[in-house]
Amino acid sequence: MKYIEMSTDERRALLSELKAKYNEFKARDMTLNMARGKPSGAQLDISMGMMDVLASDSDLTCEDGTDCRNYGVLDGLPEAKKLLGDMMEVPADNIIIYGNSSLNVMYDTISRCMTHGVMGHTPWGKLPAVKFLCPVPGYDRHFAITEHFGIEMINVPMLPTGPDMDIVEKLVSSDPAIKGIWCVPKYSNPQGYSYSDETVRRFARLNPAAEDFRIFWDNAYCGHHLYPDDPDVVLEILDECRRAGNADMVYKFSSTSKISFPGSGISAIAASLNNLKEIRHQLGIQTIGHDKVNQLRHVRFFGDIEGMRLHMIKHADILRPKFEKVLEILERELGGLGIGEWTNPKGGYFISFDGMEGTAKDIVALCKKAGVIMTDAGATYPYHKDPRDCNIRIAPSYPPIDDLALATELFTLCVKIVSLKKLINE
Amino acid sequence: MKYIEMSTDERRALLSELKAKYNEFKARDMTLNMARGKPSGAQLDISMGMMDVLASDSDLTCEDGTDCRNYGVLDGLPEAKKLLGDMMEVPADNIIIYGNSSLNVMYDTISRCMTHGVMGHTPWGKLPAVKFLCPVPGYDRHFAITEHFGIEMINVPMLPTGPDMDIVEKLVSSDPAIKGIWCVPKYSNPQGYSYSDETVRRFARLNPAAEDFRIFWDNAYCGHHLYPDDPDVVLEILDECRRAGNADMVYKFSSTSKISFPGSGISAIAASLNNLKEIRHQLGIQTIGHDKVNQLRHVRFFGDIEGMRLHMIKHADILRPKFEKVLEILERELGGLGIGEWTNPKGGYFISFDGMEGTAKDIVALCKKAGVIMTDAGATYPYHKDPRDCNIRIAPSYPPIDDLALATELFTLCVKIVSLKKLINE
Repeated sequence: MKYIEMSTDERRALLSELKAKYNEFKARDMTLNMARGKPSGAQLDISMGMMDVLASDSDLTCEDGTDCRNYGVLDGLPEAKKLLGDMMEVPADNIIIYGNSSLNVMYDTISRCMTHGVMGHTPWGKLPAVKFLCPVPGYDRHFAITEHFGIEMINVPMLPTGPDMDIVEKLVSSDPAIKGIWCVPKYSNPQGYSYSDETVRRFARLNPAAEDFRIFWDNAYCGHHLYPDDPDVVLEILDECRRAGNADMVYKFSSTSKISFPGSGISAIAASLNNLKEIRHQLGIQTIGHDKVNQLRHVRFFGDIEGMRLHMIKHADILRPKFEKVLEILERELGGLGIGEWTNPKGGYFISFDGMEGTAKDIVALCKKAGVIMTDAGATYPYHKDPRDCNIRIAPSYPPIDDLALATELFTLCVKIVSLKKLINE
Repeated sequence: MKYIEMSTDERRALLSELKAKYNEFKARDMTLNMARGKPSGAQLDISMGMMDVLASDSDLTCEDGTDCRNYGVLDGLPEAKKLLGDMMEVPADNIIIYGNSSLNVMYDTISRCMTHGVMGHTPWGKLPAVKFLCPVPGYDRHFAITEHFGIEMINVPMLPTGPDMDIVEKLVSSDPAIKGIWCVPKYSNPQGYSYSDETVRRFARLNPAAEDFRIFWDNAYCGHHLYPDDPDVVLEILDECRRAGNADMVYKFSSTSKISFPGSGISAIAASLNNLKEIRHQLGIQTIGHDKVNQLRHVRFFGDIEGMRLHMIKHADILRPKFEKVLEILERELGGLGIGEWTNPKGGYFISFDGMEGTAKDIVALCKKAGVIMTDAGATYPYHKDPRDCNIRIAPSYPPIDDLALATELFTLCVKIVSLKKLINE
């Protein structure tokens, strides 16, 4: 029965029953975390072989004869470019390999745009206003970067097909202060949506008022399928932009963070040759080069994209039951109650939950009191402001499955309690 | 006999003899490189044990229980802070561990000052003019960073005791646009000078017109003694600044680039707690954390600072004969001729050579024609402009010692030829 259809007395009776259940949970004194998209220990274990591929008797010379132990090679080993190029579905020539964090690459990219501008245009930091479009809900760390640099963020609704392109097209073509948009095109954070072909084509055909407008295409979950036999497929954006005569309009980012070890992987930017030329110039001032030994370690461990694909199946086998468990409990506990909706991702690291308007903060707070840490309500919106206070990001990857089930049960209980209170007060 | 005391006929006769010798060299079709401060293969070999300290059966948990394979730990493992703190002679609390490149840390530091300013002061990028003092000759990559950000560079002469502090004090205290100074305090690049106690104390007691003035103290060669039994000792600048009531005035940088593997080491910034608080805030936007597995690898390999000290003795044993060979040839070939002077470093990676005014470019060009690559003349000065065109940086580390001897002989020959030509033309 939908809560909205209950009488006030029925609601009160149910609430009192649920509160008793909540107190039982609380008494168990749990500490569970569903806040961050961290791989579990089991996922990390499958990459331990990486620790053995380079040993003291290994030849650390790469394909072109470079001694990977010494200085040099600004933009990455050829074989690392090939591997990450294949992973990102672009030619190796369109790749620069970076250090351990694609977030860092995105930060540095925005920072460079602020101080030096894009291809001869005024540095963003010298302009009276710079704006970014932010599909919402979205990734908190993206929004933190643009906020840090004082860039004004404009919310754009996410649809199951990607950002609402009617709005994106209208804004981008009319306001020259709009310099960029944050995108997680495949298994989006937090919904797990993948952009439709039409969405990607409309992105590639944007007609921005600002010549230095760039799409920030964070391909964080390109190979992170939960169902490797039935993967989401997203059109390759560099190629689409090139066909549309907008070759320079996109920066694409990715890393092996959730493939090998988060924090000890390798990352990359993919872009047009014009963009890479500009980036390489700045990079040559910033560093002599990134960690080539670690690049070589990744290449030797995975071998090639097929090796990486097989490795991702192992990740999927660990993650899939967790996602299914959470979704099963959400459906069992909340299905048909009319107090929440959630996404059903086929990959990535998150499930997006929308409760009734005005409940998200209270739900997260109630979870916390019983020892279950969720991503802060509001975190999925620029400035931490969810205008409807309804979105909560669920991260099923890190806890063991039994803990996860417990945490999800508690979460659903908190959703019910907060929703009932809301309905009773009204 | 000094060339200046020779008759024109004597000079001509000698020149013709030296040219013949030069042509013999040229006919050997050599390719030798004395341009960059790169460790040699033999030096890299002594760190190969680092490839074995972490294996697939290793426990990658650090002292405080953190799984180094996963996300987290923004500012470095406690044990890595301890190791690099000991190396940089500061408490672990004053350390943030970064990625593979201290140059990158310096770039990021300047970039942050440009976009966000220093402790609430106006971002440098919003000021009409920002100036840096540059002790000359100095490190080309420092100057490249400040040039990249449009910072005006002012030359300050280097003395054997460090930068000319009379000039530094006068400029820093009188011009609020002067926001920083580049320093390589120990075994300076390119001279190999180490700052005297008086110089360090005068630095710590500076009274800058700009409250957001910072000393950029690049302690690149802190443990790089050629004579470990007779090391240069430089006063610790953070401590001196603190005693002088200027605790926040300095950023200190270092890395293990020339200790373990260049490009695959770990780096750090050391600063006051106030500075670190500001830096940590920005760093938390830029990244989730640096490569902890590599931090752990370094800690497990070196053990502690004593282990690192013993390791540096191995480097010294490889480097010392090379420096001595170059210095021996310089003395044998150029001693007493009055056409050049050079430094006699006890550590670091370079020897600084000063030829007659107006000869450096020609010497480097002549070397190049015979297959010996030197650092570009002018590179040791801001904007690549050596006002006297006399300084050349010699990097003895990379070539095998026989090649090095050959290259140095050719270099001295080129010095003689260019100097004679200069004297004859005059």
